[in-house]
Amino acid sequence: MGAARSLCQGFLHYAFDYETPKTLVVPSIAAGVVFRFTQLLILLYLVGYVCIVQKAYQDTDSVVSTVTTKVKGYAVIKGSANTSSPQFRDVADYVIPPQGDKSFFVVTNMIVTTNQKVSHCPEIPKPSTLCNQDSQCTTGLEDLRGNGVRTGRCVNYSDTVQTCQVLSWCPLEEDTGPNKEALIDAAENFTLLIKNSVTYPKFNFHRRNIMPHINSSYLKTCVFNSSTDPHCPIFRLKQIVSDAGEEFQVMAVEGGVLGILIDWTCDLDLWASQCLPKYSFRRLDDNNNSRVLAPGYNFRFAKYYKSPEGTESRTLIKAYGIRFEVIVFGTAGKFSMLPTLVNLGSTLTFLSLVPTVSDWFLLTFTKKRGFYSKHKTTHLRDEDEEDEDENKLSMSMGTSYGTQ
Amino acid sequence: MGAARSLCQGFLHYAFDYETPKTLVVPSIAAGVVFRFTQLLILLYLVGYVCIVQKAYQDTDSVVSTVTTKVKGYAVIKGSANTSSPQFRDVADYVIPPQGDKSFFVVTNMIVTTNQKVSHCPEIPKPSTLCNQDSQCTTGLEDLRGNGVRTGRCVNYSDTVQTCQVLSWCPLEEDTGPNKEALIDAAENFTLLIKNSVTYPKFNFHRRNIMPHINSSYLKTCVFNSSTDPHCPIFRLKQIVSDAGEEFQVMAVEGGVLGILIDWTCDLDLWASQCLPKYSFRRLDDNNNSRVLAPGYNFRFAKYYKSPEGTESRTLIKAYGIRFEVIVFGTAGKFSMLPTLVNLGSTLTFLSLVPTVSDWFLLTFTKKRGFYSKHKTTHLRDEDEEDEDENKLSMSMGTSYGTQ
Amino acid sequence: MGAARSLCQGFLHYAFDYETPKTLVVPSIAAGVVFRFTQLLILLYLVGYVCIVQKAYQDTDSVVSTVTTKVKGYAVIKGSANTSSPQFRDVADYVIPPQGDKSFFVVTNMIVTTNQKVSHCPEIPKPSTLCNQDSQCTTGLEDLRGNGVRTGRCVNYSDTVQTCQVLSWCPLEEDTGPNKEALIDAAENFTLLIKNSVTYPKFNFHRRNIMPHINSSYLKTCVFNSSTDPHCPIFRLKQIVSDAGEEFQVMAVEGGVLGILIDWTCDLDLWASQCLPKYSFRRLDDNNNSRVLAPGYNFRFAKYYKSPEGTESRTLIKAYGIRFEVIVFGTAGKFSMLPTLVNLGSTLTFLSLVPTVSDWFLLTFTKKRGFYSKHKTTHLRDEDEEDEDENKLSMSMGTSYGTQ
Repeated sequence: MGAARSLCQGFLHYAFDYETPKTLVVPSIAAGVVFRFTQLLILLYLVGYVCIVQKAYQDTDSVVSTVTTKVKGYAVIKGSANTSSPQFRDVADYVIPPQGDKSFFVVTNMIVTTNQKVSHCPEIPKPSTLCNQDSQCTTGLEDLRGNGVRTGRCVNYSDTVQTCQVLSWCPLEEDTGPNKEALIDAAENFTLLIKNSVTYPKFNFHRRNIMPHINSSYLKTCVFNSSTDPHCPIFRLKQIVSDAGEEFQVMAVEGGVLGILIDWTCDLDLWASQCLPKYSFRRLDDNNNSRVLAPGYNFRFAKYYKSPEGTESRTLIKAYGIRFEVIVFGTAGKFSMLPTLVNLGSTLTFLSLVPTVSDWFLLTFTKKRGFYSKHKTTHLRDEDEEDEDENKLSMSMGTSYGTQ
Repeated sequence: MGAARSLCQGFLHYAFDYETPKTLVVPSIAAGVVFRFTQLLILLYLVGYVCIVQKAYQDTDSVVSTVTTKVKGYAVIKGSANTSSPQFRDVADYVIPPQGDKSFFVVTNMIVTTNQKVSHCPEIPKPSTLCNQDSQCTTGLEDLRGNGVRTGRCVNYSDTVQTCQVLSWCPLEEDTGPNKEALIDAAENFTLLIKNSVTYPKFNFHRRNIMPHINSSYLKTCVFNSSTDPHCPIFRLKQIVSDAGEEFQVMAVEGGVLGILIDWTCDLDLWASQCLPKYSFRRLDDNNNSRVLAPGYNFRFAKYYKSPEGTESRTLIKAYGIRFEVIVFGTAGKFSMLPTLVNLGSTLTFLSLVPTVSDWFLLTFTKKRGFYSKHKTTHLRDEDEEDEDENKLSMSMGTSYGTQ
Repeated sequence: MGAARSLCQGFLHYAFDYETPKTLVVPSIAAGVVFRFTQLLILLYLVGYVCIVQKAYQDTDSVVSTVTTKVKGYAVIKGSANTSSPQFRDVADYVIPPQGDKSFFVVTNMIVTTNQKVSHCPEIPKPSTLCNQDSQCTTGLEDLRGNGVRTGRCVNYSDTVQTCQVLSWCPLEEDTGPNKEALIDAAENFTLLIKNSVTYPKFNFHRRNIMPHINSSYLKTCVFNSSTDPHCPIFRLKQIVSDAGEEFQVMAVEGGVLGILIDWTCDLDLWASQCLPKYSFRRLDDNNNSRVLAPGYNFRFAKYYKSPEGTESRTLIKAYGIRFEVIVFGTAGKFSMLPTLVNLGSTLTFLSLVPTVSDWFLLTFTKKRGFYSKHKTTHLRDEDEEDEDENKLSMSMGTSYGTQ
């Protein structure tokens, strides 16, 4: 019994005896201050950076969002108002694509070429298309910078100029650049309603940009203003462009791309009702540089018609305008046990650097560094072993004291 | 030679003598248990959280994906079936945009205004448009909540009501809200084929949602069902909406936005064939609240026609319907040496916290804490130095023993 | 006074006495080398992985970008060139959607069904639509894999075949698969201009893919080539497809999805002008497998016409083609104090692992491990306490030496 018990105790001691560093308490207030100060720094880092700045005690989630947009307004095209055939445009005409996506284009300027039919017509005059006789126009040549396939004939473009004839949609578009003043200048008064629903799936948190406190009558009359109406979801296009630091009528001439940024960054530990969208606006295409090549934004599209006889014609529209892109972003954070523990632990391991710093200070800068060093550090020499062997002294220190 | 050798040895000892903490083995099983238990906790954290939950031994990559969609089906518009001119619609008519993008809209309800021409007509009656005489209608006023530019005349809207005349697309749309029952109610039977190819570029892993085990005949007849056919890429619109917890015929009246989420989260260390898409469905716009303002989803678009004389007319369609958005997400992980080493090391530094905890336990809670403390900690006093100076005692402990 | 001063000193010593581990310097060059080598490894890891590979001294930001695209070119549809009515197509006809988005579709092949009207016509023959008599055609049956609603009549499809009559857009499309050779084969010579503006908001860094050193005349003539013109923003469609490892004329028949990837990964600590876009191309839909089901990419859309009498007709187009998707990605890094300190500190805590490794080496592999162990480790035994109590010896070591 006794033997078994002792064996068991032996094993317990072998497995569970606790090995701990011997330490020396040094009465150096300087070193102590350095030690405490370094600890304090780490604590401040923990509280300040990890907790307050990084909010490392929070679990985070990225926003999942859906956006629908609706532009309202109408315009009479500049210069057509007092003619016999005024040209009127509303939302179904000038918003492309029409389906109220998060990215949409509002036509502000255009070059319209009506009644185009696939037929033969003279090329637009430029060095490579001018000609005097048919032999200068290679039949079938497809010049990618031209407008159509050459028929091999040289025909009159005007009374004085002859160009190669091409097969194309005729008459050709005469692209002399956009009108110097936007044709649909009234577009600056159009309004834009943005409906944005966001979800933070991890926290089962849902919200709309049409806030609960917004009532129907406010929604009917309000217009967004970053200082007075920051939560009205209805925007005037002119205001959006000017908040992005641009001039609407200037941008309307050649077109551009404008970002509407909605920031849903939220701290869900605070009162959740403080989770509100923050709108900001930024021009996304680069127009800073006066020597920018190929500035602005335009594209061509066509409307197709068929005559009663069945021949197809089209109206080609080169549309200049502003593409609006609604960009929703944000991260929500909420207290969670796991990241708290992980980050707390991770920061605490920094404390293992403190003694290194303090020891270095103690043994380098204090007046009594030699004295401290002597007590702190024992230099073992190889010869000691031989001495020991001779003397057969017990080196177990606890024992040596006891037997003195 | 001897001097050089000794110098060299001196340098070697200076550079490579190893300084190690002196330790005390304390026969306290309690402290030992605390020590081992804390180590065990960290080990469990390493295995449990770092390895199993976070899979920190894996390198991860985000999914790169492309989606094409194709809706099939046709419908006779409600109420037109037995008339002389039944209205028939197929995919080219009701899917907008048509190009099979990851976001598309299916028309389920609509208000159609045919044969609109730019001309003059009376405004829709509402408080701000009613009038008795021309002077109440300011010429040229562009009321953004109206439908056109006022001509300055007050005209008969009906036998009893007079409103201001406007220049606009006439006749004006009479928007009395959507039909109470969806006009294209048959849309619930439309089918949707989703083709989704995903790539994890870092692991050179490619996969389609049309799995290799799906054969042509299955693909022709199958319909997705989360329990019986979870990998059929053909969906019935009604099923999608009902899986999202909504009623198709209710949602079809005012419209909405529906997310089709495809989750490709994969552990590529496992048998790669287990990397399968998981489909889920969620309504993305907010409709929970009965007092939601501006609910649903609709937009206006037009089809343009030209008469033989060249006057343009259009058919304006206010389309209500469901926008479907296919959202592909996922992260794949695969074993990689570098993150394994980094995370292993990072976790092991936690072990440097263990002695702190154990020492605190040892010197605070054990019965013999005074005894342990005395052996562990040496209190150096400033007076000691003076004593030393007097006695000129060697403080090198190893030496002192040897010379006793 | 003296008492207060002493009390104060007592407190100072209590709060600021510095406790430091006692250490033993072991003259084992082997252990020293292991110690220094482990330290060196960690230093190498710090420099090599943390600094050079991970650039952990940098703050990072994700790219915010906007893309506009413009396709140029025209084509005569194959086989129509020498007919009396050649069919000519330009950018407004074959790019869908037209608005120059980052995702667009170029039609390369098609099946056109002209002059469809809502009326009655026989179904396309297939087993489920063949009939001999009216009773085989259930009135009102809406077969979702058919083309329209059955009228209940069995009519002649051709001289020999009878099928059920349906209400639909008639005549029905005869979909016998795409032409074996792409109708718009000239599409391979179309050019694509990509305008891409990127921003790293955190660093207030803006850039365009049309670089400052590109001048107007270069832009008019250049074509992208990964080796000779890697910064020309104008691409030939054939080149894009071939750089993605595909054959244009093969892909044009059934269609597909092609990714144009623009990588703006930048190290902004280097000369910022080295921040250049890198273009790469990849086929995004899966076509590797010869037995792929439902390969390619196509969709149907319609153009609507109205006769002078007001009956609506449409031209249905099943368009096959290539969808191009411009994908912009990238991360920029720039030196920042905070991440540098955090990552430096975090790495330095690894040094707390070094003594563990070295001690294990010292006490396991060195020849004199017994001797080192004896000096390093003091084994305290419970009996020691009893001895002490008897002898009333002061255990404060510094003192004991002084009073010997």
